[in-house]
Amino acid sequence: MSTENWEGQARKAKDLLQNSIPKQWLVSADKLPPADQKNVEDFPRKSGVLSDREISITEKSATALVAGMAAGMLTAEEVVVAFLKRAVLGHQLLNFATEFMADEAIARARELDAHYRRTGKLVGPLHGVPISVKEHIGLKGRTCNAGFAAWVDEIASEDALLLQYLRKAGAVFHVRTNQPQSLMHLCCDNNLTGPTVNPYNRTLTAGGSSGGEGASMGFKCAPLGVGTDIGGSIRSPAGFCGAYGFRPTTLRNPGVGTKIPCPGQESIRGTLGPLASQSIEDLDLFQRALIDQEPWEIETSLVPIPWKRVAPTRNMTVGIMWDDGCVRPHPPITRALQHAKEKLLAAGINVVDWEPHRHDHGWEIVSTLYFPDAAANQRVVFAASNEPLLPLTEWALNFSRATPLSIPENWALNCQRDSYRDAYHALMRARGVDFILCPVYPGVAAVFGESHYWNYTAVWNILDQPGAVFPSGLVVDPVLDAVDGGYVPRSEVDAREWAKYQPERYVDAPIALQLVGRKYRDEETLAAAGLVAEIVQGRE
Amino acid sequence: MSTENWEGQARKAKDLLQNSIPKQWLVSADKLPPADQKNVEDFPRKSGVLSDREISITEKSATALVAGMAAGMLTAEEVVVAFLKRAVLGHQLLNFATEFMADEAIARARELDAHYRRTGKLVGPLHGVPISVKEHIGLKGRTCNAGFAAWVDEIASEDALLLQYLRKAGAVFHVRTNQPQSLMHLCCDNNLTGPTVNPYNRTLTAGGSSGGEGASMGFKCAPLGVGTDIGGSIRSPAGFCGAYGFRPTTLRNPGVGTKIPCPGQESIRGTLGPLASQSIEDLDLFQRALIDQEPWEIETSLVPIPWKRVAPTRNMTVGIMWDDGCVRPHPPITRALQHAKEKLLAAGINVVDWEPHRHDHGWEIVSTLYFPDAAANQRVVFAASNEPLLPLTEWALNFSRATPLSIPENWALNCQRDSYRDAYHALMRARGVDFILCPVYPGVAAVFGESHYWNYTAVWNILDQPGAVFPSGLVVDPVLDAVDGGYVPRSEVDAREWAKYQPERYVDAPIALQLVGRKYRDEETLAAAGLVAEIVQGRE
Repeated sequence: MSTENWEGQARKAKDLLQNSIPKQWLVSADKLPPADQKNVEDFPRKSGVLSDREISITEKSATALVAGMAAGMLTAEEVVVAFLKRAVLGHQLLNFATEFMADEAIARARELDAHYRRTGKLVGPLHGVPISVKEHIGLKGRTCNAGFAAWVDEIASEDALLLQYLRKAGAVFHVRTNQPQSLMHLCCDNNLTGPTVNPYNRTLTAGGSSGGEGASMGFKCAPLGVGTDIGGSIRSPAGFCGAYGFRPTTLRNPGVGTKIPCPGQESIRGTLGPLASQSIEDLDLFQRALIDQEPWEIETSLVPIPWKRVAPTRNMTVGIMWDDGCVRPHPPITRALQHAKEKLLAAGINVVDWEPHRHDHGWEIVSTLYFPDAAANQRVVFAASNEPLLPLTEWALNFSRATPLSIPENWALNCQRDSYRDAYHALMRARGVDFILCPVYPGVAAVFGESHYWNYTAVWNILDQPGAVFPSGLVVDPVLDAVDGGYVPRSEVDAREWAKYQPERYVDAPIALQLVGRKYRDEETLAAAGLVAEIVQGRE
Repeated sequence: MSTENWEGQARKAKDLLQNSIPKQWLVSADKLPPADQKNVEDFPRKSGVLSDREISITEKSATALVAGMAAGMLTAEEVVVAFLKRAVLGHQLLNFATEFMADEAIARARELDAHYRRTGKLVGPLHGVPISVKEHIGLKGRTCNAGFAAWVDEIASEDALLLQYLRKAGAVFHVRTNQPQSLMHLCCDNNLTGPTVNPYNRTLTAGGSSGGEGASMGFKCAPLGVGTDIGGSIRSPAGFCGAYGFRPTTLRNPGVGTKIPCPGQESIRGTLGPLASQSIEDLDLFQRALIDQEPWEIETSLVPIPWKRVAPTRNMTVGIMWDDGCVRPHPPITRALQHAKEKLLAAGINVVDWEPHRHDHGWEIVSTLYFPDAAANQRVVFAASNEPLLPLTEWALNFSRATPLSIPENWALNCQRDSYRDAYHALMRARGVDFILCPVYPGVAAVFGESHYWNYTAVWNILDQPGAVFPSGLVVDPVLDAVDGGYVPRSEVDAREWAKYQPERYVDAPIALQLVGRKYRDEETLAAAGLVAEIVQGRE
């Protein structure tokens, strides 16, 4: 850990990023959309940087890209170049990258193409798929700072284990992506790279903590990305940016080689997982490519459960959770749930209401377990470089109790956690509910800096139930989603969140939904989410 | 927790036990072997209490008993009565029980017989199998004190989850068994029930902490028993008493409803598991009957891995660990390993030497993690009733550091633990070793009060690798197992353990071995242990 002042460290991080950007694809400032243009999602078509073929490539799913390369219709090189061009544009507009790796990515793509020409075969199920990677997931020889200034000089000695598997499966890593200071915002800002904004509305956050991934997916800078999630950090950015994301049950995906402030903290585990720009199917492809390699043979904490092939079935019961009993969702969310309900019923799916079970209790446990040491580890890292805390960092660190827990206090919370998990699971069984369809967040993407309420995602972390996020296909509509002035909030928190809603603050924001399954039913959850997304989006 | 003085509490526990003993099967004191007769293992045949048929029943495996009941050749009632009679004798000689449940067991057996008569079918794979149960595994409405005087008044509100599953599978619980004070001895003594001794030599311990189970199995008071293991507590008593025992990978068997001083402590997990008087096959029967019921649907911490049916194969490599690099095994153990090696080679099994990997490091981690709170939780319970600590309790509590760990210190140990696990697993893969054959303890059953060195078992707890224990078929032989006066110990600990050995101190003690597999390879480990035991015992 460096003790150099944070400003010098930040300069290093900025220089590294700046020097890594492939300059040939930059658009000059006068040709970019004006700074006050909120929605920039369609800029790639207008930029002139990408050919029609490249636009088409970047709008394909990973599954389709691999099929194209298997058929000899696409080369890995042209694929990664197309996504690199789009990523450079995306970075100019959204500030989502921490480092480009263009030369290395193109070289790797050429190797893959040579392999294909030589053998007629792909190297693996992710052959030639460009994948963006959240910065704190280590890449050998590169900085791994997790958004902390004091860690800018920390260099990963190896690729994170998950990336090793993806690479073996054929993935090409072309860009590393931004994360908030401390990793603990559902927003994305830090003192190194600055804020990452939402492609659909640049006054909104791309979400967090995998906010760079959210922007990457929303702007289609890669078909797949890798994020991490301990309270919503994959699902929030996926949802906010109109993309797809999956938080698996913990201990299925490898975590070795990820830089975090509190390694060894196990009471509430984070997990790595995929985001995708195009489909749930791609999330399954990612998981399959990974787990088929039996990562538990290296990281022995993982459960040795093979990735099952599960076909979606309409023979399921979906419980809709309209409200978590604590914070009322904003009108667009409720409309999307209503829309989903109608579509699912029309498709012959059994739909019931889901009464939430003690989500406030879940929040009490999980928020205390985030910082059982009163965030001492984080504060040490900030102090090392004298780095100032951003407001949302303070916000998250204040979830902590004022003083560190004792070990027996931590044990008591572990017991509460396990009882809560068992009770929730029993309730799903008793009610015959296979999946819960629910909001990702009280609203659509938060206005930058306003991501305060975590528990539409965090509760599933403490319950350790897998969850997939997908776009409903709807966007905020000022007419349909008018403010409901008659609502009387239940609490200060409820009032705070409700007061944030005015449709004009969220123009063009996509509305996402989350499908949650039972613990370890990861494959079933993705299969069901794929079907539900198709039905809700009207693609079936 | 009661604050009554410990002596009053101990009186309650003794009265409960005394009142529960079925008096009709007691042998009068003058007909018992003299107190100085060490080996009492053959007393049932001489006692006159059991008929020849009953003797024969109690010498059958659970598998054979179930087959006999399925064929209508045995009734559950006669089976449980036979084992109850033997258990009463065993208790008179070994002091292994904390509570008999004769009436309830016989009533349950009659229900099972009625079910069989009515339907011609068994209720499940453990139909009519008497199972003894370590006391701290809760049974509804009964004390659950874990060997602490202050907890004698604690009454379990439900059967422990594992017992619920065994009961559904047809098991009959007839006797609860003794455990050491604090559960943390590889010996068995407390202030409530007193010492449990070894059926083969009553100057030796029955092992611990599931010492009552060890005696129960060694004396054949039940074909199967349930113990718990966080440092050797199933394997030590099984090994010391000439029986079979299995410590599965953690989070396979349910633990809810087990009374322990530190619930929620997860850095080093204990697990429940079976002991058997007759065979490895019975351990597999137990596991199969349990896990086929999918306990993860209730206790969601468990991994949802079905119990595989694995056939033993000679196509395996067994690494023999002659010494853990810290404490040299006593001559009988080395002789048994040599014997095993010859037998395995003759049977065509690939055998190599296993070089241990940093077992001292493993002990440093595991011993620190046993009491991260500096055993404060335990001391509170002792203080509540002013209960004096037994020497081996002091011994174990002294594994602890002087002051509680901070939570970050605990996290650092978790990381060391995971790295050690990964390294050990990688080494087994690199060396091509499927199973490690090793001692259970530096010697055979310890002289009562001398169980000091844990790490022939505890290292596999910190590594979380499954281990099965079986008798080699050999016993201590004063001629073959003479003291090796030339050995120069490596350390004080090594010297302490080596000095304990003189063959006359261990007359008639059976010599056990332990077969350890890779994490989560529980089924393969049991299958291999079954084959290895057959080969080593010369039964194949």
